[in-house]
Amino acid sequence: MGQADNLRFMKRFRVKTLISMDPQEDPVLCKGWVRTKRDSKNVVFFEVNDGSSMKNLQVILDKDKEILSEQMLQRLNNGSSVEVEGMLVESPGKNQKVELHCSALTIHGDADPETYPMQKKRHSFEYLREIAHLRPRTNTFGAVARVRNTMSRAVHDFFQENGFLWVHTPIITASDAEGAGEMFQVTTLDLDGLAKADGAKMSGGIDYSRDFFGKPSFLTVSGQLNAEIYASAMDRVYTFGPTFRAENSNTSRHLAEFWMIEPEIAFCDLEANMDWSEAFLKHILATVLKESRDDMEFFDLRIQKGIIQQLEQVVESDFTRISYSDAVSQLEKSGRNFEYPVSWGADLQSEHEKFLTEEIFKGPVIVTDYPKEIKAFYMRLNDDEKTVRGMDVLVPRLGEIIGGSQREERLDVLSRRLGESGLTEKDYWWYLDLRRFGSVPHSGFGLGFERLIQYVTGMQNIRDVIPFPRASKTAEF
Amino acid sequence: MGQADNLRFMKRFRVKTLISMDPQEDPVLCKGWVRTKRDSKNVVFFEVNDGSSMKNLQVILDKDKEILSEQMLQRLNNGSSVEVEGMLVESPGKNQKVELHCSALTIHGDADPETYPMQKKRHSFEYLREIAHLRPRTNTFGAVARVRNTMSRAVHDFFQENGFLWVHTPIITASDAEGAGEMFQVTTLDLDGLAKADGAKMSGGIDYSRDFFGKPSFLTVSGQLNAEIYASAMDRVYTFGPTFRAENSNTSRHLAEFWMIEPEIAFCDLEANMDWSEAFLKHILATVLKESRDDMEFFDLRIQKGIIQQLEQVVESDFTRISYSDAVSQLEKSGRNFEYPVSWGADLQSEHEKFLTEEIFKGPVIVTDYPKEIKAFYMRLNDDEKTVRGMDVLVPRLGEIIGGSQREERLDVLSRRLGESGLTEKDYWWYLDLRRFGSVPHSGFGLGFERLIQYVTGMQNIRDVIPFPRASKTAEF
Repeated sequence: MGQADNLRFMKRFRVKTLISMDPQEDPVLCKGWVRTKRDSKNVVFFEVNDGSSMKNLQVILDKDKEILSEQMLQRLNNGSSVEVEGMLVESPGKNQKVELHCSALTIHGDADPETYPMQKKRHSFEYLREIAHLRPRTNTFGAVARVRNTMSRAVHDFFQENGFLWVHTPIITASDAEGAGEMFQVTTLDLDGLAKADGAKMSGGIDYSRDFFGKPSFLTVSGQLNAEIYASAMDRVYTFGPTFRAENSNTSRHLAEFWMIEPEIAFCDLEANMDWSEAFLKHILATVLKESRDDMEFFDLRIQKGIIQQLEQVVESDFTRISYSDAVSQLEKSGRNFEYPVSWGADLQSEHEKFLTEEIFKGPVIVTDYPKEIKAFYMRLNDDEKTVRGMDVLVPRLGEIIGGSQREERLDVLSRRLGESGLTEKDYWWYLDLRRFGSVPHSGFGLGFERLIQYVTGMQNIRDVIPFPRASKTAEF
Repeated sequence: MGQADNLRFMKRFRVKTLISMDPQEDPVLCKGWVRTKRDSKNVVFFEVNDGSSMKNLQVILDKDKEILSEQMLQRLNNGSSVEVEGMLVESPGKNQKVELHCSALTIHGDADPETYPMQKKRHSFEYLREIAHLRPRTNTFGAVARVRNTMSRAVHDFFQENGFLWVHTPIITASDAEGAGEMFQVTTLDLDGLAKADGAKMSGGIDYSRDFFGKPSFLTVSGQLNAEIYASAMDRVYTFGPTFRAENSNTSRHLAEFWMIEPEIAFCDLEANMDWSEAFLKHILATVLKESRDDMEFFDLRIQKGIIQQLEQVVESDFTRISYSDAVSQLEKSGRNFEYPVSWGADLQSEHEKFLTEEIFKGPVIVTDYPKEIKAFYMRLNDDEKTVRGMDVLVPRLGEIIGGSQREERLDVLSRRLGESGLTEKDYWWYLDLRRFGSVPHSGFGLGFERLIQYVTGMQNIRDVIPFPRASKTAEF
């Protein structure tokens, strides 16, 4: 595309294309932002980036040519936006294959070095979070944006190629039965009015008939239950969308708004679910290693040494599969002195997960069949009546990256488990209906997209792998 | 995939694959839900659907074979879930190429005809909205789900193939400057507490330092301004995600929660923006006509006669481009007696848009350069100081389907326009920064995904083209 461009001007190429092209007979056009400028006696060197690539296009401007007035030279700065025409020729330098010999230059927008918040020096990630509207112009955040896009595309490609439908499950939900404490409420009531006087007040509290949805409503924490509806008709579906958690934890690992991926698969038991999760993870990693190679080399060099090799190992490995009970035994007999003691019935801590993947099995591990008390009501109960068909996929360096389960498809068992979990059948009538009419064995898993990006890039703070992070007291931009 | 399936069982195929296969030498496996059953003297005919296709697989079960007990025959009903093994053979019937001669049958889940809410008879869409957890099992809603998925994939493919990055712009925003009245507020304050007593009250109203984000926060109405940030670094980006509007209009055309697509393109003027929007729309329509042919034939037959031909005409047409001023002239001199009179300065009404596309130009029309008073502050001001570089793409039958503009890239003009629109520079500091540092001519457009699906399928009510509609007093499931 860009047909209009090419009809009205000479052929414009993105930087990514230009830097890997052979020298051209006809002049070419490049548009982007200046990253560096070096002014020598007879020529000006500058580099242009347009976000398509980690690498810049080197441009050489001969001062004799009078293309460049002194005023324009002053305006040609880090951050200014330009259109450059010229011949793409072989570069004598060893850092690039080709360079552009500029024959015409347009400066669209200035970036005054005195006031431009992005200086040449390296800025801290903390500082860049305060100027999140400019940070995509840095190498790191450009690379994060491209890798995030490559991974997003890989998510869709994996599921689409395997016959899954993307289902847009709702963001606003009136079901607060699960994890109510950690949900954001959504309302059109006038809060100031509520605080002041009469408003929508009633003796018992709020009169929700005056709220938009006629009842308390919240931001979703998961699309799973809705996805199960579609899996019960379309067989294979997945969600990929924003989810919300009102956790007040101000850590480098939590966001209030994050993107989740949740496939749900009919006629699928836990074994097949493990196959799918393993194939999914390997597909994402293999795709990003192949398609975002330059960016991954940057992360390997600057952010997390050896990360490419680590991810390659995961792609090539067979994931170990072990029951929770066996995992606990292995941890107990390891003789390791853990901060949190290991005992059957307690959830695995991060240190245990790391020990399993890094020390015992030296690779990814899928732990299955957890005690029912520490897992959700919808996981399928095993015949021992003590454990459920849940699974966690653990990887070295990170710990848990995927959680999933075979779902309870038996109406009577599910009803019982609802009750044991303090939930009511009334709130779950439609979820129970799926077991009442044409119920099938089915399974699914879920993962937080930002945690996956952290794992792939090595970025330490989750706020740096999403364009505009939302967290406690943080909703800028 | 489904490797585990194929290792442990015989080869399973989706219905979509089976119905177009040649007869096979080895037995095959099919899993799905029974759609119809016909019980004759020696054989039982039933059809299985697994959501992969509009069409069902016909299965024939020989009663002699003793595969089928009387009890199983009773359980084999519309809605029950089954696994069927057998030979795929040529069908003598003229409605299908092949049929499955069943040699083994498993019934996973019953659907008691006495209580199953989905009977064979056709249900009204109103009724089906009340059982939105079961409606994907109908022909219509199965087709909508598949077409929606095909269109979603086409959206991503179009942008990815043209070098755009998918950017996840935030859902929660603390900027309520635009359209505040129609936004949902997001809060973790205890509303009951507010209504009752002290709580977070202050003399001036709410103490927002006690709310999660430390200030009033809302659900986004558009990702455009955030997308402009990324376009100012990565050149070509798009959003595709949920947006929200707290409009209390209970119509067949409005949702409180809907998905929007918003590309944003640097170094792009309005002409190129029109090229992009036209190419985008044609790509979506051409893809769905090709890849969801069976489903589109269903919509053509049952929902909107002639829709395939209509969409094909749009794909083949050149969109007419006309200025708002010229469009108004044409409407004025048409002599048509409109309900709303046409006059320069007033927005075009639906009847005017339809007249332009259906009567005057007989095809899609892009209207440009609207009076600044009826368009947003960020649209680029023309030299006449009266009009702005906005555009609306109109199509026959629907009217406006896409809205867009070239954005104001000049800092001084944008500041002035902000002031004229009653907005403050303080709220838009980062948006102005994009014009302060490396500003470029740029453009973008936006469209509501559900309206596009309505247009493509002919479905009359927007609540029937999204899995779980959210609207005034409506947030079930």
